[in-house]
Amino acid sequence: MKIAIIGAGSVRFSLQIIGDIAQTEELSGSEICMMDVNEIRLDATYTLAKKYCEELGANLKIEKTMDLEEAVKESNYIINTAYPYPKGVEDGYKRWEIVTEIGEKHGYYRGIGSHEFNMVSTYSYVICSYPDIKLALDIAEKMKKTAPNAWLMQTANPVFEITQAVKELTDVKIVGFCHGSSGVNEIFERLKLSEDKINWQVAGVNHGIWLNKFSYEEKNGYELLNKWIKEESHNWESKGPWDVQLSPAAIDMYKFYGMIPIGDTVRNGSWKYHYNLKTKKRWYGKYGGIDNEIERPKFHNILRKNRERMIELSKKIKEDKNVNLTQEWPEIFKKGEMSGEQHVPFINALSNNKQVRLILNVENQGIIKGIPEDVVVEIPVIVDKNRLQSQTLDPDLDDRVKEYFLIPRIMRMKMALEAFIKKDIEILKEFLVRDPRTKSFKQVEEVLSDIMNHPINSELKKYFNV
Amino acid sequence: MKIAIIGAGSVRFSLQIIGDIAQTEELSGSEICMMDVNEIRLDATYTLAKKYCEELGANLKIEKTMDLEEAVKESNYIINTAYPYPKGVEDGYKRWEIVTEIGEKHGYYRGIGSHEFNMVSTYSYVICSYPDIKLALDIAEKMKKTAPNAWLMQTANPVFEITQAVKELTDVKIVGFCHGSSGVNEIFERLKLSEDKINWQVAGVNHGIWLNKFSYEEKNGYELLNKWIKEESHNWESKGPWDVQLSPAAIDMYKFYGMIPIGDTVRNGSWKYHYNLKTKKRWYGKYGGIDNEIERPKFHNILRKNRERMIELSKKIKEDKNVNLTQEWPEIFKKGEMSGEQHVPFINALSNNKQVRLILNVENQGIIKGIPEDVVVEIPVIVDKNRLQSQTLDPDLDDRVKEYFLIPRIMRMKMALEAFIKKDIEILKEFLVRDPRTKSFKQVEEVLSDIMNHPINSELKKYFNV
Repeated sequence: MKIAIIGAGSVRFSLQIIGDIAQTEELSGSEICMMDVNEIRLDATYTLAKKYCEELGANLKIEKTMDLEEAVKESNYIINTAYPYPKGVEDGYKRWEIVTEIGEKHGYYRGIGSHEFNMVSTYSYVICSYPDIKLALDIAEKMKKTAPNAWLMQTANPVFEITQAVKELTDVKIVGFCHGSSGVNEIFERLKLSEDKINWQVAGVNHGIWLNKFSYEEKNGYELLNKWIKEESHNWESKGPWDVQLSPAAIDMYKFYGMIPIGDTVRNGSWKYHYNLKTKKRWYGKYGGIDNEIERPKFHNILRKNRERMIELSKKIKEDKNVNLTQEWPEIFKKGEMSGEQHVPFINALSNNKQVRLILNVENQGIIKGIPEDVVVEIPVIVDKNRLQSQTLDPDLDDRVKEYFLIPRIMRMKMALEAFIKKDIEILKEFLVRDPRTKSFKQVEEVLSDIMNHPINSELKKYFNV
Repeated sequence: MKIAIIGAGSVRFSLQIIGDIAQTEELSGSEICMMDVNEIRLDATYTLAKKYCEELGANLKIEKTMDLEEAVKESNYIINTAYPYPKGVEDGYKRWEIVTEIGEKHGYYRGIGSHEFNMVSTYSYVICSYPDIKLALDIAEKMKKTAPNAWLMQTANPVFEITQAVKELTDVKIVGFCHGSSGVNEIFERLKLSEDKINWQVAGVNHGIWLNKFSYEEKNGYELLNKWIKEESHNWESKGPWDVQLSPAAIDMYKFYGMIPIGDTVRNGSWKYHYNLKTKKRWYGKYGGIDNEIERPKFHNILRKNRERMIELSKKIKEDKNVNLTQEWPEIFKKGEMSGEQHVPFINALSNNKQVRLILNVENQGIIKGIPEDVVVEIPVIVDKNRLQSQTLDPDLDDRVKEYFLIPRIMRMKMALEAFIKKDIEILKEFLVRDPRTKSFKQVEEVLSDIMNHPINSELKKYFNV
């Protein structure tokens, strides 16, 4: 069995996945192909991965390549975690930083990629996510020839738009992955509930999921949550920029929509929570969440430092075989513990019939009533050797979640996708016309012109023929 | 047969309808019950109606009442054209003017009733249209008892929201009426096409309809339109604030959506066309359309002057039997010509089997694909003694019209209706949070507070329990 990881030079993700594979008995003997366009980073993670497997005593065949076609060829599973960027640029974040800065210059706080119901903007690149969708379609194209039965496990954002695009435009088997649903655990911990007594479901679209089912020992879990909100929520404090699951924003959204938003969804309310840093702090605690001008640059800085550390570490182990990764950096090189990512359980269920319930991005097909059949939704799915079986939602999502959140979010996905498919910048303009930060059509034309004419976007400009 | 007209003291509408009835042979002998809460205006239009019928030599039994129950009782058709207002207020426009002024004070240009895809704001009162929906439900309630088989012909705005509300909340037969679809004639005239050679359809929701079918002698009518746009549209000039059917705004919307918007729909694009008076003039010609701070007050002034003229005229004919209305004021008191309103053809089709195709507001039931079955849409309907048969759309509406215009417009209708039904001001807040003119949640709370606390809205305030 061959598992390819596209974008394997990333700071932590590929090593976590390899750790999960290494610690899954049934996957012993698998071949893992690490692919990245950045040679230095790929060499580093490859060296670390091999050493990590040694330490875990795992029997895996680890390979590396800079050639996408080679990575895809004869794979059974292809995990796409790449955040693409043009040559000569440091990383995908850099490009986002530049475009965000241009947006802010034109009055678009946090850039034109941040919008109502989608403030997780890092990847919704110039609204249409051109580089990210294009890469996924490239992979799909190659799969058609040399890995037609493989699963494309879409992990890089925007998971919603990319999974939808690949579904609509190709025949490859694709499933979208996100760990956002693990936000439920933060709620369960906060309410001091033991997980084995909880019955829960979440549903929605990626980064827009809601706790539709929540019972505890046959009791209505929402009553416990209401009690916590009433008695304890005033003591809530954010422990860091990512700790927002039970923030005032989440509770405010819960009060309006009737179900609590889970994971990144909490970041994705309306502008009510996002007008400026002060507003963000009022709703997300003292850090103001991660989507702001203070925490986001800090986070990118940490990622880049970790990348350097990774490269240093890979050099170090070449010189000194006694370095122990699981001791040196246990947050990444876990031992005796899985990462919590859903990828390896998914692979193990399909390949080895280890049945598992996961929260996956698949076509709706009637699961969320009132939402089109062919829209990719994030829902609970039972996976085993024979099937991906979406669970019936019980209860269904609240009407307000569907009518006032999912429907407008899906509309924006459709606009982004149509802009991409038709190479039509008019849709990007219309998208921005509807943005509350827009004060005039001139502003729309100017911000798009400045973005398209930045050298970093030369390919995008050509694509849109503007 | 009895036809009731609710709001019959209005300046021109009831007299036009009575003129149409008087000139429809098959309706000879009908009873017309004119109802209004304003005694002076009702007396005036009643006096004028009787005189007008005399002049036309029509055999109609005209009555008047200030009692809604009496008007409804045993009616076959009930035309609701009333624009309700609280006691002590001049008219429905006055209330709208006050609320618009409060909105503008808080940064909502043209008031909180003006919004994306619905700038025809006169009647979308405090978003939820409380007085208008309430009146229609009152009529429906009375119909249940004394006119259970009658048709409620909803003419007062917002036709979309009211027709939907009555459909959802009662069992009465309701159809929504609007003459907006007559905008097609302006196009046909401009292109110098003779009507009998044209095959056309429009579809959408009220004030959001689009020319889906347009052929001329088997040719594609859109090619003729494209030719006109290319060769002649630069010569277009607005002849008045209502003359916008072929304005740059209409053409811009056509270019984006792929079909041309018809009638009031042209007024209902995004804020792109409406940021301020200057913007409106750029898109709607020298008057800037009717929805602005210059033309709207002028128009209300004309209406009020006409009302005075009407009252004067009614006094005059009491004193001088030689006054001839059809000569005195032929624009209203038409002779040998129908008004163009669809009401009387509708009645004559149902009652006397005079088959006719009308553009009516009825439940979708699959006609516009992808739009929920139970949403009230404005579509072509064949009416005769036995049925209202919606026409199949050929071709269907363009995807962009459906996905990017109708879907968000329908969402706003649902929000307005849910706010009304649940008496929940939180929905009005959420509605405004999504409004591009909103800069902070404080602004939302303050504008709603000021509106609710104005004495004119005491009933509304009580209703929402705020």
